[in-house]
Amino acid sequence: MMRTRPLKVALLGCGVVGSEVARIMTTHADDLTARIGAPVELAGVAVRRPDRVREGIDPALVTTDATALVKRGDIDVVVEVIGGIEPARTLITTAFEYGASVVSANKALLAQDGAALHAAAGDHDADLYYEAAVAGAIPLIRPLRESLAGDKINRVMGIVNGTTNFILDKMDSTGAGYQEALDEATALGYAEADPTADVEGFDAAAKAAILAGIAFHTRVRLDDVYREGMTEVTAADFASAREMGCTIKLLAICERAADGASVTARVHPAMIPLSHPLASVRGAYNAVFVESDAAGQLMFYGPGAGGSPTASAVLGDLVAVCRNRLNGATGPGESAYAALPVSPMGEVVTRYHISLDVADKPGVLAQVATVFAEHGVSIDTVRQSGKDGEASLVVVTHRASDAALTGTVEALRKLDTVRGVASIMRVEGE
Amino acid sequence: MMRTRPLKVALLGCGVVGSEVARIMTTHADDLTARIGAPVELAGVAVRRPDRVREGIDPALVTTDATALVKRGDIDVVVEVIGGIEPARTLITTAFEYGASVVSANKALLAQDGAALHAAAGDHDADLYYEAAVAGAIPLIRPLRESLAGDKINRVMGIVNGTTNFILDKMDSTGAGYQEALDEATALGYAEADPTADVEGFDAAAKAAILAGIAFHTRVRLDDVYREGMTEVTAADFASAREMGCTIKLLAICERAADGASVTARVHPAMIPLSHPLASVRGAYNAVFVESDAAGQLMFYGPGAGGSPTASAVLGDLVAVCRNRLNGATGPGESAYAALPVSPMGEVVTRYHISLDVADKPGVLAQVATVFAEHGVSIDTVRQSGKDGEASLVVVTHRASDAALTGTVEALRKLDTVRGVASIMRVEGE
Repeated sequence: MMRTRPLKVALLGCGVVGSEVARIMTTHADDLTARIGAPVELAGVAVRRPDRVREGIDPALVTTDATALVKRGDIDVVVEVIGGIEPARTLITTAFEYGASVVSANKALLAQDGAALHAAAGDHDADLYYEAAVAGAIPLIRPLRESLAGDKINRVMGIVNGTTNFILDKMDSTGAGYQEALDEATALGYAEADPTADVEGFDAAAKAAILAGIAFHTRVRLDDVYREGMTEVTAADFASAREMGCTIKLLAICERAADGASVTARVHPAMIPLSHPLASVRGAYNAVFVESDAAGQLMFYGPGAGGSPTASAVLGDLVAVCRNRLNGATGPGESAYAALPVSPMGEVVTRYHISLDVADKPGVLAQVATVFAEHGVSIDTVRQSGKDGEASLVVVTHRASDAALTGTVEALRKLDTVRGVASIMRVEGE
Repeated sequence: MMRTRPLKVALLGCGVVGSEVARIMTTHADDLTARIGAPVELAGVAVRRPDRVREGIDPALVTTDATALVKRGDIDVVVEVIGGIEPARTLITTAFEYGASVVSANKALLAQDGAALHAAAGDHDADLYYEAAVAGAIPLIRPLRESLAGDKINRVMGIVNGTTNFILDKMDSTGAGYQEALDEATALGYAEADPTADVEGFDAAAKAAILAGIAFHTRVRLDDVYREGMTEVTAADFASAREMGCTIKLLAICERAADGASVTARVHPAMIPLSHPLASVRGAYNAVFVESDAAGQLMFYGPGAGGSPTASAVLGDLVAVCRNRLNGATGPGESAYAALPVSPMGEVVTRYHISLDVADKPGVLAQVATVFAEHGVSIDTVRQSGKDGEASLVVVTHRASDAALTGTVEALRKLDTVRGVASIMRVEGE
């Protein structure tokens, strides 16, 4: 069954991930040939800075003209590891037009334009694979869209950003504040010079959109994902979490509503019990917890970023796409038949941990409790502590909608006896 | 693209797993149709006891003649959830001859005859999928053979038997002895009336053979797997483990040798550090830790058995196999091109925890240490305790080969001052 004409691969981008992809394609060429059923050949590498030395890559393959490379007409698979929206989007669309399949690690693009890209792939009987776009090396896209294809997924909850997990883990284990932990993450190379995409949850939100779309067979756009960063998490929040037997993680949560008729997707910091498998995910690791009707609770754990892990995911896709090509077939495309409505954040139901600074005088608790009751938010526990006329009140609620909680907090702020709302944090994973 | 002629499925076996497969095929028919691209129809159900009432299954579909069912000629996919070697093997082979693809949950058969079955599938351009054969609902076979197809797997180490994990977890958390914990597992339905296949490691060994074969692209036969049960693990072993910051798990370990030129597969109880992700796998859950060159460390966690979880894995395979059929293609078959030699247990290198009952007199430690040194086994730590002329010596070694350790223990038994070897346990995951 082995054919000798090699499958030709165009590599777009040769940074941390691309150079690893090229290296493994060279060093493991025999294994890839055996696993694919045909040799696979690096036919060209598009880069921005052609003068940079790239060890192990034939300089004759290097070009700055990515468009010409994807338009060559003899390319079987385009591997896109440039990132960002443009020129990646145009290059991928062009690749399909010229008959190539595409392997991409581009979460931002997939989250924004996944539907259009899948349609373009379908129009040209090509594959679009992107395991590397979510949670790096962790096999997640393939298990969700293939292994669980006969099951009904109800929740996907994960730590999908290594930078923020590193920072939060550091705050948890050392008592450091946010800035101090961020500085360490930057110094160690876990955070970029401008960490906005990570710490404000944009990166995780893109991944949540992709995961929700696959899990619920429904198009979920980036705008559908509620997003809250983790820059305001404090050492005091970690102390509160610990008192509850919890830690704090930045979570991407995709949920089917209890009635099954709608879905939500969100990213925010949340307290989770120390006994939850996600609580023990350390450093820059990622992990995703999946709950489905038949399978029950599954978890997938591993390195969420880095050149080698991401390259592992890219190469797994490359092997699959090459096999499909040899078979004259394509793998599963977009599955959006369920077309469930995506509900706004107000309809999300969860528990809350609220810290209030209040006046230390009789009747305050009764006032506060009344506000919760008026908004239909049931209180689980209250802890009061105070001295010198100042006091703090920590309220943990039962499950309530985000809208009800928001209304409660607005009303609390208007009480004379409430000096301030020190923090509001969701409690997940119970 | 939707075709209306349904794909026909023959279900062999309608016990705990089969009845769940039938139920989900009925209740989720619309979802399966959308995900496959064509309706899928239960065309027949072969059972041993036709008079048993099977809720939700049309009695007209039920037959006791499994052979006639697979020979009908119009069956697209045979789902085999009978288990055991025969008649499952003949039925699967016949299914291929009659043009069907096969989804199986049969670990014993796959471990024993996987190569022949894959060859039979290949001869008839049919698929043989068996995600449910290892670790129940946990997507594992597909990630190993597809997601990591571009990577080099060096170790697969997992808890792949829920019964024994339940027993060991119970011993760990309550201090119970083996028999007491087994009795509880039996009462709760986690252990069968004859628990031999589980507690003696036969079930885990079959899974180890399957996993090693896929991970290393090498045929690994059941006979190649070293197997040691967990019936002799004692409460005292757990106490020793705890002193080392460890717990005890029954592990299936598939390893590539350091030089890459050979592999090993084994099942035995082992101490692992409490900080290792596998240490916190509770109850009847399964988890598999995978280490590869590029991806690094991955872990897959979930329910390892049970009707619904196993059915989830079967149905994921069913969707994939049906898609392949509509595509006129087949998925990845056996990959055994690497054909690495499987080394015997003597060549496995790991650390050991050895408890000796010794005479409480001067010079014993020197004698014992000399024996270790003579066999090239380097000692990491020794702890001595004793009273009334009796003493115990706990030795933890550095990494040594199983052959060297066996030689050491034989020599120790011959020392006058060694009254007995109370326990020998491997230490993994460090």
